[in-house]
Amino acid sequence: MNFKRYSRQALIPFALTAIVSAASAQTPAPALPDPASTTVQALGWMQGFPPAADKLITFDNPVGNTFPRIRWTFSHIREIVPTSNVWRGPGAPSALRAAPVNLDNVRFKVMGTGEELTFAQSLDRNYTDGILVLHKGKVVYEKYLGALEPQRPHLAMSVTKSFVGTLAALLAHDGSIKPEALVTDYLPELKNTAYGDATVRQVMDMTIGVKYSENYADPKAEVWDYARAGGMMPQGKDYAGPKSFYDFLQTLQKEGEHNQAFAYKTVNAEVLAWIVRRASGKSLAQLLSERIWSRIGAEQDAYFMVDRIGTESGGGGLNTTLRDLARFGEMMRNNGRAANGQQVLPKAVVEDIRRGADPAQFVKAGYTTLPGWSYRNMWWVSHNPNGAYMARGIHGQAIYIDPKAQMVVVRYASHPIAGNAGIDPTSLPMYQALADTLMKQ
Amino acid sequence: MNFKRYSRQALIPFALTAIVSAASAQTPAPALPDPASTTVQALGWMQGFPPAADKLITFDNPVGNTFPRIRWTFSHIREIVPTSNVWRGPGAPSALRAAPVNLDNVRFKVMGTGEELTFAQSLDRNYTDGILVLHKGKVVYEKYLGALEPQRPHLAMSVTKSFVGTLAALLAHDGSIKPEALVTDYLPELKNTAYGDATVRQVMDMTIGVKYSENYADPKAEVWDYARAGGMMPQGKDYAGPKSFYDFLQTLQKEGEHNQAFAYKTVNAEVLAWIVRRASGKSLAQLLSERIWSRIGAEQDAYFMVDRIGTESGGGGLNTTLRDLARFGEMMRNNGRAANGQQVLPKAVVEDIRRGADPAQFVKAGYTTLPGWSYRNMWWVSHNPNGAYMARGIHGQAIYIDPKAQMVVVRYASHPIAGNAGIDPTSLPMYQALADTLMKQ
Repeated sequence: MNFKRYSRQALIPFALTAIVSAASAQTPAPALPDPASTTVQALGWMQGFPPAADKLITFDNPVGNTFPRIRWTFSHIREIVPTSNVWRGPGAPSALRAAPVNLDNVRFKVMGTGEELTFAQSLDRNYTDGILVLHKGKVVYEKYLGALEPQRPHLAMSVTKSFVGTLAALLAHDGSIKPEALVTDYLPELKNTAYGDATVRQVMDMTIGVKYSENYADPKAEVWDYARAGGMMPQGKDYAGPKSFYDFLQTLQKEGEHNQAFAYKTVNAEVLAWIVRRASGKSLAQLLSERIWSRIGAEQDAYFMVDRIGTESGGGGLNTTLRDLARFGEMMRNNGRAANGQQVLPKAVVEDIRRGADPAQFVKAGYTTLPGWSYRNMWWVSHNPNGAYMARGIHGQAIYIDPKAQMVVVRYASHPIAGNAGIDPTSLPMYQALADTLMKQ
Repeated sequence: MNFKRYSRQALIPFALTAIVSAASAQTPAPALPDPASTTVQALGWMQGFPPAADKLITFDNPVGNTFPRIRWTFSHIREIVPTSNVWRGPGAPSALRAAPVNLDNVRFKVMGTGEELTFAQSLDRNYTDGILVLHKGKVVYEKYLGALEPQRPHLAMSVTKSFVGTLAALLAHDGSIKPEALVTDYLPELKNTAYGDATVRQVMDMTIGVKYSENYADPKAEVWDYARAGGMMPQGKDYAGPKSFYDFLQTLQKEGEHNQAFAYKTVNAEVLAWIVRRASGKSLAQLLSERIWSRIGAEQDAYFMVDRIGTESGGGGLNTTLRDLARFGEMMRNNGRAANGQQVLPKAVVEDIRRGADPAQFVKAGYTTLPGWSYRNMWWVSHNPNGAYMARGIHGQAIYIDPKAQMVVVRYASHPIAGNAGIDPTSLPMYQALADTLMKQ
């Protein structure tokens, strides 16, 4: 294996990678190791009692929590950091009926290079930990690779943000959040920060002018302070900075103007999570359980990573099983109605997400793999002919919802490249090819 | 509230109290605060986003994790430390049928003082977080007080040890552990420790001569090293001691001889947990899930606290819901058969536990509240006319199984006094009074 060419990612502690911006990896894909050589089975991490010293993965060893060790870590987050539970409720899980379709030989061309791949080949190529495809509500494909298992939660990374955005949109529909209101109407603590003159809507759509860099090459980038404050990486023994998400958010200063351009910054999701808590009087874990998780027929509890005072990471801390992520995606596809028949979200909330925002604001962010897209309520909206929209997290986490094809794809992965720009070329055309195939069924 | 009189307990960090020996609190019960004044609701901990600074409970603040704050902490362990999941399996929970009996006015006399109390009064007096009474397999009483809820796991403290002992007895029945073998047959790492010439049986019944003090008044007591090594309390920034349970166990030296007397020391449970893992090739969490938790019809997952390398605390780290603890207790009462009809444990395993060990060894440990008892496979056996036996954890955690009365009582609590010697006087006669009442039903 040659790790040199992606050493920048390799120095990012596991949990911190949760908040790498998708924009930060627009560089061409480097040469990558053979995925089969990086599995937990192949490399033998955390086997035995105790594991060998060189096979240990721990929170306080930054080297230990980088690729390829994330192939283990992303399926074992709660064993490394404190977490809070998202209860699935008392009811029986909803059935996920299987109606298998052989998709392995579906072919597509890699964006940019034009190389032809099959769906089956793309799974390895994307360091997939698990993938599930729903068509018309039935499971046409479900596969687990690596360390993931059907009952085991996996780190959703920034897919988390779409959950926070959905909860915010739901509270807006309820009337308990007013998107046109100032952030400070809910969070007076942010008066002297970048958010002092911002609206909730600007936070929901990430058009905030805030000095916050996720450039990992810069040791002074704010992302390091964020990660240390939130308990995602060791603070170091002489650390004197902010010790919680809330403390960190109060340090953020303005840079540029709001409402000029889409700018993907994880701190906006943390601010929105705070607004959601303040407006609802509930923790993210409790609200997500009450309003969504206990209503979609989830078969397992989900959980959030939390900071030292128990605050969930709304930017990248959610962990769910693949099957429950599929149930959530199917509920979204079905205009808010879950497979068990429950209307979990009002149709208007889903429509407001699907409609997207202004692509003219989005284009300024320079996402070459996402032409014509927009970002609304913390969802990525393609505006393609099928009306597809996505939740996206680094290292390959994804919910892809294609309303026209009546298809939902959910994927968990542990790709060595953080940013989706390095993963989109083998993913977006694959989703489209699956949709094309299933529409002919 | 006057905390002065139990200030020794009050200085024990929350997680560390898990391993206080029952023997360490043989002192007379001090004056205690009014339980109602110590609830989470009354004192307002961890309310709001963020909670007020003086209402925070965090891992790195020892003062913050002592009584009365344990009234919150014991129901929120996973939000403070890393944990590993004990999966309940894919099946439906077993029904816990309710057949309420009004037990509130059952009267009993407090051991020692002769004061008369009702069952209802004893709940407050014992700082009960939740109590459930099964009679002939039906729920005759179920009540939650404080921070506990039916779906929320609570720290089981040393009740954990009885789970480890049961798993060890099960593996012994399978033939994969030989109780007569030397510990070093499984754990050669312990050759130069107190366990170098001990047998597995001596570990299972805690008749080990090991220099290990749980005297919290002594800053050099080994219990502090144990807690720091296991991640139950902050290690401090210049800590250079053992950093995992395994590393700590290899430091233990002999004191006295084995097989002379019962001596309750938490490290024996950690050694037994290690033997169980080595012999089964599975983590405690996985083995408990496969052999017990997925077979008793549990309605929620359970979980263990883990150290920095993911090793479960077999001495005091298990967390379960009250209802699932009751299902486990009922399976034990029913000679290994769960309420769903599954034979979870061979009858011989339960009989081996119920039979107990030699009371002559037990009496030397000086438990004044437990005359005639013994300790077998990490269970406490009363040898009373009803054949009652218990799993016991500090601060009031208990499973009380009365075969003759066909009764199981499970209790989670957050009593300011750690040792059960301070709690037994209002508990053991209460259990007996419940049994007497129910036998007349």
